Amino acid sequence: MNPDRLAVTVIGLGSMGSALAGALLDGGHPTTVWNRSPGKAQALLDRGARLAATPGEAVGASPVVVACVLDYQALHTVLDPVADSLAGKVLVNLSSGSPEQAHEAAEWARSHGADYLDGAIMTTPPGVGSPEMMFLYSGSRAVFDANRPTLATLGDPLHLGTDPGLASLYDAALLGLMWSTMTGWLHGTALVRAEKTEATAFTTVAVRWLSAVAGFLTTYARQVDDGRYPGDDATVDVQIATIDHLIHAAAARGIDNALPELLKATMERAREAGHGSDSYASVIEVLKKPAGDR
Amino acid sequence: MNPDRLAVTVIGLGSMGSALAGALLDGGHPTTVWNRSPGKAQALLDRGARLAATPGEAVGASPVVVACVLDYQALHTVLDPVADSLAGKVLVNLSSGSPEQAHEAAEWARSHGADYLDGAIMTTPPGVGSPEMMFLYSGSRAVFDANRPTLATLGDPLHLGTDPGLASLYDAALLGLMWSTMTGWLHGTALVRAEKTEATAFTTVAVRWLSAVAGFLTTYARQVDDGRYPGDDATVDVQIATIDHLIHAAAARGIDNALPELLKATMERAREAGHGSDSYASVIEVLKKPAGDR
Ligand SMILES: [Ca+2]
Ligand SMILES: [Ca+2]
Repeated sequence: MNPDRLAVTVIGLGSMGSALAGALLDGGHPTTVWNRSPGKAQALLDRGARLAATPGEAVGASPVVVACVLDYQALHTVLDPVADSLAGKVLVNLSSGSPEQAHEAAEWARSHGADYLDGAIMTTPPGVGSPEMMFLYSGSRAVFDANRPTLATLGDPLHLGTDPGLASLYDAALLGLMWSTMTGWLHGTALVRAEKTEATAFTTVAVRWLSAVAGFLTTYARQVDDGRYPGDDATVDVQIATIDHLIHAAAARGIDNALPELLKATMERAREAGHGSDSYASVIEVLKKPAGDR
Repeated sequence: MNPDRLAVTVIGLGSMGSALAGALLDGGHPTTVWNRSPGKAQALLDRGARLAATPGEAVGASPVVVACVLDYQALHTVLDPVADSLAGKVLVNLSSGSPEQAHEAAEWARSHGADYLDGAIMTTPPGVGSPEMMFLYSGSRAVFDANRPTLATLGDPLHLGTDPGLASLYDAALLGLMWSTMTGWLHGTALVRAEKTEATAFTTVAVRWLSAVAGFLTTYARQVDDGRYPGDDATVDVQIATIDHLIHAAAARGIDNALPELLKATMERAREAGHGSDSYASVIEVLKKPAGDR
């Protein structure tokens, strides 16, 4: 333990909570842990963690309390009975939930005299502790700044804004990007594997291609903020013509085309809305309103 | 012009064909161009290109003929009448099409005594000539190797295999990945913009997140090749529980949820097929068969 490091309590020892406590121990923080089923703590106790017998003892042990439980309801089940002990503490809530739940939790913490940061962990448990991995936070900037050295033990801390719901909002948006990307990649992988190409060979090229796509996103982000979508390089009309190559090639190989069919239908809605000669970024105009509501 | 550089003919002067000819001129290649409407050539002639009066003259002018026309039908319309002049030439076809069309074109070229490479350009016209941008080729390895210095003038040339359809197959698969990624990003961008966050601010985080996602793809590619999907870090069941946060947050903000609803339904099919405790890579098992065909 390093006496310059703040004591931290970790509540919730699923695979992610255990990874958080492990990173804090590695960083020299005196670390107290609590979990509903205490058996999960043994590996951490062997590494120097203290086991709190109750949630109240856990909160009392450290100025910073990191919560990583299943959801906000689980958070309240654990902390409501000991809410008074939160006064003067910093509660960092890394549990998954909605922006609205984050707002409520921030208000609840404030009413009990605690500082509050809501967070989202943008990595898997093995990535915790790596300075490349993003941890997203929202809430008071001053509280974030004061606790940045402790938060940096877990990963690279980014402050998104004072609205406590922003971390959950970004979390949802980024996971949506991940599922879209992974499913598009799996569809492409199924396509090339039908022609005896290994997934690993295709993925080397796909990962490099994603860097180029990231460049397109950066260009298109400026267009979205400007509300203007110049189709200099590739228009929605051209993409609609091109996606048929994918749909035909996949259909001929017995691959499910629900995803590319949906993408094509979305592009066609953008064309119907007058964006045929605009860039792909213009598709956001039809996502802003549900399909039935034109 | 550099006498060490092969003479190259470019057929088709759309924005992409013009970019190809421009990169060849920049690289010191004697460059002949032909287009159905010759007016498009003027800027290239000013930079030193020669204008061929007919397709036959164009093919006759250079040992390497690069075709970049609308589709394979356009290619045949231009080259069928002068097919005999292709004997001994290298035809590099960068027009868009299906793997089946590439096979036919390769056979057609062979029957006329020409070497043939089929290719796909993985960038927009402004990216042509940059060594970071990928140009995918398939067909004879020996023809590729012999012409690599010329091909490297256009971008980074990758040889995918001797099956001439592979470049088109990868092209379709990679564009599918692009559309999936861009649409998922636009959905997330619409979500955060509903809370007054700028697309550019979100995209800085999203681009960094895509690097982490690329790491997941690399791990999952090995799982796909092994046919085993250990759900150590994040299971399909967990993703299904988590995507509801996205769907609720987007619905509450009036955003079209067709994409996340489809992703959720696809994950649920994977769970029904017995992959609930497996990693997301197992979703490929249900993409391999169409949804109605279980
Ligand atoms: Ca959260
Ligand atoms: Ca092609």
